[in-house]
Amino acid sequence: MLERFKVPLKDRVRVPEESLRRTVTAIFEKMGVAPEDAGLGADTLVMADLRGVETHGVSDMMRGYVSLYRSGALNPRPNWRVVRETAGTATIDADGGLSVILGPKFMVIAVEKARDVGVGMVTVRNAGHSGPIGHHAMVAAKADMVGVAMTARGSGVPPTFGAEGRLGTSPIAIAAPARHEAPFLFDAATSAVASNKIALAQRVGADLPPYWTADPDGVPRTEEGPVPEPGQFMLLPLGGTREMGSHKGYGFSMMAEIMGNLLSGSIPAMVTGSGEGQSYAAYNIAAFTDVDEFKDNMDSVLHKLKTTKPAPGHDRVLYPGLPEHEEEQERRANGIPLHREVVGWFDDIAAELSLPVLDRV
Amino acid sequence: MLERFKVPLKDRVRVPEESLRRTVTAIFEKMGVAPEDAGLGADTLVMADLRGVETHGVSDMMRGYVSLYRSGALNPRPNWRVVRETAGTATIDADGGLSVILGPKFMVIAVEKARDVGVGMVTVRNAGHSGPIGHHAMVAAKADMVGVAMTARGSGVPPTFGAEGRLGTSPIAIAAPARHEAPFLFDAATSAVASNKIALAQRVGADLPPYWTADPDGVPRTEEGPVPEPGQFMLLPLGGTREMGSHKGYGFSMMAEIMGNLLSGSIPAMVTGSGEGQSYAAYNIAAFTDVDEFKDNMDSVLHKLKTTKPAPGHDRVLYPGLPEHEEEQERRANGIPLHREVVGWFDDIAAELSLPVLDRV
Repeated sequence: MLERFKVPLKDRVRVPEESLRRTVTAIFEKMGVAPEDAGLGADTLVMADLRGVETHGVSDMMRGYVSLYRSGALNPRPNWRVVRETAGTATIDADGGLSVILGPKFMVIAVEKARDVGVGMVTVRNAGHSGPIGHHAMVAAKADMVGVAMTARGSGVPPTFGAEGRLGTSPIAIAAPARHEAPFLFDAATSAVASNKIALAQRVGADLPPYWTADPDGVPRTEEGPVPEPGQFMLLPLGGTREMGSHKGYGFSMMAEIMGNLLSGSIPAMVTGSGEGQSYAAYNIAAFTDVDEFKDNMDSVLHKLKTTKPAPGHDRVLYPGLPEHEEEQERRANGIPLHREVVGWFDDIAAELSLPVLDRV
Repeated sequence: MLERFKVPLKDRVRVPEESLRRTVTAIFEKMGVAPEDAGLGADTLVMADLRGVETHGVSDMMRGYVSLYRSGALNPRPNWRVVRETAGTATIDADGGLSVILGPKFMVIAVEKARDVGVGMVTVRNAGHSGPIGHHAMVAAKADMVGVAMTARGSGVPPTFGAEGRLGTSPIAIAAPARHEAPFLFDAATSAVASNKIALAQRVGADLPPYWTADPDGVPRTEEGPVPEPGQFMLLPLGGTREMGSHKGYGFSMMAEIMGNLLSGSIPAMVTGSGEGQSYAAYNIAAFTDVDEFKDNMDSVLHKLKTTKPAPGHDRVLYPGLPEHEEEQERRANGIPLHREVVGWFDDIAAELSLPVLDRV
C-alpha cells in the first residue's frame, strides 16, 4: 500500500486477530448467518486485515454488510444452487448470499472439477459482495492449482474517452503456489484504484494522486488533490488516459464483466444498474505439468523478482503477495492496527448487539 | 491506434489483401513451411494488417520470421505433440514451430475440449512467436465460446521499483461473440506498450508519450521525447509508476507468465533468458448459460459502451474490437496501407525468392 494510505500512528488501535475473528463471527451470527458460514466470512475479512489489505477487510465492509442484512438486501441463509453444470463448469444462483462467505465454497467446486478434468470454472449470479477475491483464489493455490477469481460490479467508471460511468471497478485475482517463497497472489481492481481506496483516503486524510479520477465531464484529473465530493468525480480505468493505457484497464474490466456477468447469465450493471457476477476458476497444475517442477520454477521466478536491483529511491523490489505475506506475520504477532474510528464502530455495534467488545493489544 | 503512430500519408502504399496473402503464403512456403500451414500463417498476419494492428502484421514480423527460419531458430515442419492431457487440458511441445501458424490449431484443441467438458485450456512450450494472439482468441469466439490467449515472452520490462528487466511484454487477449455488434476483442501487451510499438514509432518518426519507458537505472521517463537508442531504455509495465498502477501491469504480466510458461513446463525468460510459453483457453458459453441470451446481452453492453457520451475533445467512445472491425471493412475495400519501406522489403525478398512482386492498389 502507498505510504500515504496507511493508518496514521496516532489513529492506530491494535486488536488481536482472535478477538477480531470472534467479534466478526458473532456479528454475522447476529445477522442470522449460520455459525459455520459466519466463521468463513470472518476468515475472509480478517485475512484481508492481517495481510494489510485494509480496503477489503473489516473497516469499510462490516458496517456495509450489517446494513445490507438489516435491509434484507443480503440473504443470511441463502439457498444457493447450481443451475447449469458440466464436468468442468457450474453456473450458480447464489440466492442473495454474501460471497465473502460463499466465495471459498464456490472455489472448492471449481477445484473439485479441476481435479476431475484438469480445469474447473464456476460462474455466479445473484450474489452479494465478493470481498477480497484474492482470498478465494488462494483456495485453489492451497490445493496445488492456479486460482483465478473475477468480480464484475458497478458502473461508475467511464470507458476511455467517455463522460459517463459504464464499467465496474471489477477486480481480477490470480494465485499460484510456490515451494519456499511466499505464494504469488495478485488481486487488483481494473480501475485505477478500488473505490474503497477513496473511503480510505478520506479516513486517513490523504490526497489523491493524479490520473485516478476524472471530473464529471470525463476529463482526467492530472494534478494531485484532495478527495472530491461524492458525485463530483468518477474513477478512471487502470492507465488513466488513453496514451498511458486506459484502454487496457478498460479491456481488463470487460474481461471480468464477460467472465462474471455475461457467462453467469447476470446482466451487467451498465445495462441494468444492478448486476454483479463472479467467476471462480481453478487450473490443476498436475494436469499440465509436474507439480514439484512448477513450484521450483515459481521459487526461481519469485526469488529473481525480489532480488531485482532497485531503482534509485527504492529499497527493494516486491512481488504480488510478498508484502502481504510479511504483513501477515507481523500482524499475527503484534495485532491488527485499525483506525480508532473503526474500533469505535465495533464498540457501538457490540453494545447494540450485546456482544463483548473488541480486545485491544 | 494513436494518431501519431499511423503511417504518414506520404509514406503509404496501398496493397490489395489478396496479393498480400499470396505473397506472404509464398514466402512461408519458400521457408519450407507446408502449403496449408503457410496459408494459416498468412491469414494470421494479414488479418492483423486488415484490422489496423500494424505492430503485429507483416511489417515488422515477416522479415523477422524469414531470418529465424533461415538461421534454423524456427522449425518450418514442426512435429508438435501433446505431452500431457486430460479431458479439459493439454500441454503441447511445439517443436520450434511458429505459433502465428500453430496458434489457431491449438485454440481448436481447446475448443474441442470445451465442447466436451465446458472449458478447455492448452498450454504450449517450445513455440515460436505467437503473433497477434487476439486472432487465436477469435477462433473460440467464432465457435460460440469465450476465447482467452496469453503469451509470456521476454524479460526486458522492470518490475515496479526495479532497475533490471525481468518481465515480458506478455500480451493477454480475450474474445467474445455478440449478435449484431462487432465482436468484443481485447488484445494488449501487459507492458505500457508492445515492443513493436517502439519500432513503429521509429518508422513513422513519432515521439514517445511519457510513462512508457524508464531510463537504464529504472527511473520512469515522465516527459514526452524521441525514441531512445537501443539499450538506453526499458519498457515500463502498464501503469508506468506505482502510484498510477504499474504494480497492476506487473501482476497481469505475471498472469501470462504463470499461464503460459509455468503451466506449460517452460522456464520464464527472466530465469533462463529464453523461455516463451503460451496458453489458449476456451470457455463454452452453452455450458454456462443460454447462448442467445449471452449474445443479446453482449449486444446491449457493446451498444451501451459505444453510445457513451464522449468527454470534451473526443468524437466518440469505442470498445475493444470496434475500431479494428471498422478498419477491416475499409481496408478490405481499399487495400492495406503499408509503409513504403515495408513494401520495399517485400519487393526485395520477392526478387530474391523469385516470387511475383506485391500488387499496388
